[in-house]
Amino acid sequence: MTHAATLSGVIPPVCTPLTPAHEVDTVSLMRLVDHLLDGGVDGLFILGSSSEVAFLPDGHRRTVLDTVVGHVAGRVPVLAGVIDMTTPRVLDHVRVAVEAGADGIVATAPFYTRTHPAEIAIHFRTVAAHAGVPLYAYDLPVAVHTKLTADLLLELAADGVLAGLKDSSGDEGGLREVILRRRDLPSFAVLTGSELTVDSALWMGADGVVPGLGNVDPHGYVRLFQAASRGDWTAARTEQERLLHLFQLVHAGGPHMGRGSSALGAFKAALFLRGVIDHPTTALPQIPLDDAEIAQVKDHLSKAALI
Amino acid sequence: MTHAATLSGVIPPVCTPLTPAHEVDTVSLMRLVDHLLDGGVDGLFILGSSSEVAFLPDGHRRTVLDTVVGHVAGRVPVLAGVIDMTTPRVLDHVRVAVEAGADGIVATAPFYTRTHPAEIAIHFRTVAAHAGVPLYAYDLPVAVHTKLTADLLLELAADGVLAGLKDSSGDEGGLREVILRRRDLPSFAVLTGSELTVDSALWMGADGVVPGLGNVDPHGYVRLFQAASRGDWTAARTEQERLLHLFQLVHAGGPHMGRGSSALGAFKAALFLRGVIDHPTTALPQIPLDDAEIAQVKDHLSKAALI
Amino acid sequence: MTHAATLSGVIPPVCTPLTPAHEVDTVSLMRLVDHLLDGGVDGLFILGSSSEVAFLPDGHRRTVLDTVVGHVAGRVPVLAGVIDMTTPRVLDHVRVAVEAGADGIVATAPFYTRTHPAEIAIHFRTVAAHAGVPLYAYDLPVAVHTKLTADLLLELAADGVLAGLKDSSGDEGGLREVILRRRDLPSFAVLTGSELTVDSALWMGADGVVPGLGNVDPHGYVRLFQAASRGDWTAARTEQERLLHLFQLVHAGGPHMGRGSSALGAFKAALFLRGVIDHPTTALPQIPLDDAEIAQVKDHLSKAALI
Amino acid sequence: MTHAATLSGVIPPVCTPLTPAHEVDTVSLMRLVDHLLDGGVDGLFILGSSSEVAFLPDGHRRTVLDTVVGHVAGRVPVLAGVIDMTTPRVLDHVRVAVEAGADGIVATAPFYTRTHPAEIAIHFRTVAAHAGVPLYAYDLPVAVHTKLTADLLLELAADGVLAGLKDSSGDEGGLREVILRRRDLPSFAVLTGSELTVDSALWMGADGVVPGLGNVDPHGYVRLFQAASRGDWTAARTEQERLLHLFQLVHAGGPHMGRGSSALGAFKAALFLRGVIDHPTTALPQIPLDDAEIAQVKDHLSKAALI
Repeated sequence: MTHAATLSGVIPPVCTPLTPAHEVDTVSLMRLVDHLLDGGVDGLFILGSSSEVAFLPDGHRRTVLDTVVGHVAGRVPVLAGVIDMTTPRVLDHVRVAVEAGADGIVATAPFYTRTHPAEIAIHFRTVAAHAGVPLYAYDLPVAVHTKLTADLLLELAADGVLAGLKDSSGDEGGLREVILRRRDLPSFAVLTGSELTVDSALWMGADGVVPGLGNVDPHGYVRLFQAASRGDWTAARTEQERLLHLFQLVHAGGPHMGRGSSALGAFKAALFLRGVIDHPTTALPQIPLDDAEIAQVKDHLSKAALI
Repeated sequence: MTHAATLSGVIPPVCTPLTPAHEVDTVSLMRLVDHLLDGGVDGLFILGSSSEVAFLPDGHRRTVLDTVVGHVAGRVPVLAGVIDMTTPRVLDHVRVAVEAGADGIVATAPFYTRTHPAEIAIHFRTVAAHAGVPLYAYDLPVAVHTKLTADLLLELAADGVLAGLKDSSGDEGGLREVILRRRDLPSFAVLTGSELTVDSALWMGADGVVPGLGNVDPHGYVRLFQAASRGDWTAARTEQERLLHLFQLVHAGGPHMGRGSSALGAFKAALFLRGVIDHPTTALPQIPLDDAEIAQVKDHLSKAALI
Repeated sequence: MTHAATLSGVIPPVCTPLTPAHEVDTVSLMRLVDHLLDGGVDGLFILGSSSEVAFLPDGHRRTVLDTVVGHVAGRVPVLAGVIDMTTPRVLDHVRVAVEAGADGIVATAPFYTRTHPAEIAIHFRTVAAHAGVPLYAYDLPVAVHTKLTADLLLELAADGVLAGLKDSSGDEGGLREVILRRRDLPSFAVLTGSELTVDSALWMGADGVVPGLGNVDPHGYVRLFQAASRGDWTAARTEQERLLHLFQLVHAGGPHMGRGSSALGAFKAALFLRGVIDHPTTALPQIPLDDAEIAQVKDHLSKAALI
Repeated sequence: MTHAATLSGVIPPVCTPLTPAHEVDTVSLMRLVDHLLDGGVDGLFILGSSSEVAFLPDGHRRTVLDTVVGHVAGRVPVLAGVIDMTTPRVLDHVRVAVEAGADGIVATAPFYTRTHPAEIAIHFRTVAAHAGVPLYAYDLPVAVHTKLTADLLLELAADGVLAGLKDSSGDEGGLREVILRRRDLPSFAVLTGSELTVDSALWMGADGVVPGLGNVDPHGYVRLFQAASRGDWTAARTEQERLLHLFQLVHAGGPHMGRGSSALGAFKAALFLRGVIDHPTTALPQIPLDDAEIAQVKDHLSKAALI
């Protein structure tokens, strides 16, 4: 089954719960999937940056794929990240994801190597040729150190290489250029990963959102999307502003840890505090939130009436 | 056997020959190992950046490990890169490399994620705790987007976490600070990856060099190191300057490809033209050198009397 | 007179017309001011990046100040950029701008030097203490290589140091955080410099826009702002999308010139083609558009019915 | 008089002493010049980065020029930095410097603007055409965010545009490529600004050094250069290693200030402690060293027997 060609709505990047021994906590993972589906989400994106994909060995990735695809059982489309340095390594992940039943795959440009734009095009073309399911480009310059240009994305969309874009570049002007220029490519889905500007991205014409914070409050993002869908932009904005205040929990971790550790630690702490997952454990070498920092997350949840 | 604690000399990062079908060409790889050993090198570094490690699926990495460790059969130490995004993924590569018989492993700081210095320290400490063979830090900011500081390196060296450094940062002042400050850490090896300043790095007190160009002309780097070892710095400089002229072959690839593709393509073309490997194939998505560009490489080899 | 405390609306960054001999073309500059005022703009920002301030010697800056302040004669507020590397040099520009009668000044963080956040705070505090007119922070990481954080901006706003922000960072999530968190600082004006997302920035609560493209089509941006002000967001979006298509003229210059040269050259070519300024000359060392490139600009203007 | 065509040796970038009221302390400046000339330096570079040129208003720059050129009175060549964002602003500084009697000028590529390589070439060609004294290119990517390539430098050298290079890029491989490739351009001077690798830069064929630390210990750098000149490389290395240990004083300033503030503050504190200048004042917005930090500088001077 492939829902992916008309992908839209709220598709959260699913956190990967871990046990204290750093194994995938599949029970918590299924409970998280239920929490998201109960929230009304339109799809799931597993093995993305918010899933700590960069920290997951291949065995863990496989476990996440099997657990989520199996548990969802076709109720919503499941997209799978195939994040790795270059084409040949990405192709290995593609094979595994497709075998596991993913409805679409999500790939970045190559990283670690210094790559030419023409080589980025070859990369996406090669991945698409092997995938057999829709391919979404993941634009994440903060991690990949390359920005995908509108020209490249639209060329690949027009050639049927790309089924869509997950834009986490933070460049809203560039996003809008893609949205406007793809009007004659109706099957090319544009999803924003910028969780603080969802109402405006939808206003511009984006099809959906992939919000990390949607793990913590899927209902909020679903309300936001539904309000926008029925044209009640004021309600959408009010919801977005509420979520922006909630988002401040990502700063709970102090300056003794990386900003990624703080954000992912806070998402997992919130899921733990809400009773969705059993452990707030994050992967090595991330520094965990301490008790005072977790208390800050709790305070944000209280203010948002989420606990 | 672990030669690695006293690592010094010329330890080239071994290119990974590929067949036109993009499989590891093990026959050519063994011939390349022979070419390097005949050149008199003191060790081999497999699965580094010049080995196209970022492009090699795990199966290919395993083939390279088994082929080289088996073919070398203990004649020189073999270091293996365990290049991946974060600690858990690196640990998987460590297990494979150690099982295959690598004498030492080489790891970068985490990449793709935004990592705090304290998290980089946890990363190296965790890898070392699991390795059971000497661990070398690989400082390559152009790929990893983090610079390893002298303070961090020396703290980890003093604690026995690191057996040495492969410095490809290009920051010779920082390299020298490490060299001078490790004088009370005699077992900490400092290797430079900057192939154009080997004589001066040795002059400063570095123990050895990991030159990508050493694939093409191992004899040259061995002569350079031997001249320096016997205190004949003028001969070392003359050899280095000759190698700098030869190094210009890395620019053979035009502006339609990435600089990495040009350099790796040129190294492989040179090995092909010298009869060492059977195909100049590079991994996807790199753009290959065309005939005119290969002719430029040939011209450089001719001038250097290497063909 | 200081209008600046309640700054809002369309405040274009005024291009600086030059003669072929690279002097300030004051006749054209006054004609451009008339063109903008006829378009209905709410203020003018002179000596910003779109004014080629980085290319203007102090004598030229003075001429621009005197010409524009004199010609406007208080009809709208005039903000003046005081762009330079550090505090002492900026203070010299502040003195000149205030003497010339600027209603407000616009300063970036220090650049060229590597500056600490605490030093950036000292910088703005010192400039404000000397200015005597409202000070606006100019967030332009592409030029300054520093991002102003929401925390810093709001601390300086709360202390009365900053009267507002001109945000050209392209970080719409960060912009929104500033907008929401300044709700108890009603006199702190937030202006976006991102000319492709003006409707959404106003939707989020921004007070105004500083659009480089507003030189070419001030009427369009004024219609956009007015539509938003009366709550007709659909009209605002339609206007914004029209302006996004017009904006493509910035790509007229080919790969043989910098992107800044292409954009500024296109703005000036458009003003020349529309009969507003007498010469499309840009400052050295920018490469000028050639005839074919100017023809592309003309084509964009034709499609937009601006010529 | 123009000594500059054959520039070589030790040419320190002269610190700019300030009074507590942030005026140029001309008495201290002349004393500093005497200190340097007594140390045996071969030239002086005023208004460079170590001179806090980015912080000096034009009036201060003029005072420095007049004071130093007048006090030196032709005993050694005086080079003057003309640091500003783009060509037209640089040309203003050139006129002032040449009128004041500078023997050569030192310019960076444009900064703040995004500039194309072809525009950088136009920049240097235009500056040289107006200067009438030798022009040196200043390669300082950490401030300018552009790296000058060997190809560009050698093209400009061959055309007589550039009389030399001050390389503060830290890229010793690139420096060596310039040195080797300029062998048929004997009048093109190559000076390194990397104060920790002077012996090796001279070994590679550089003509001289522009060491910020040379303010504190000019005698040390002169001894280093003289040892290298007479072929006593072991003595040169010993001196360099001593200076590397002394260089650690640049880290005296804690994490509450910028690295530039720490280094410049430490140089000035050292000059103050050695009795050369009357005040350790640095320009705004730099955070000054506190008493404990100055005590650290003193400790470094004691260990080096400089006080």
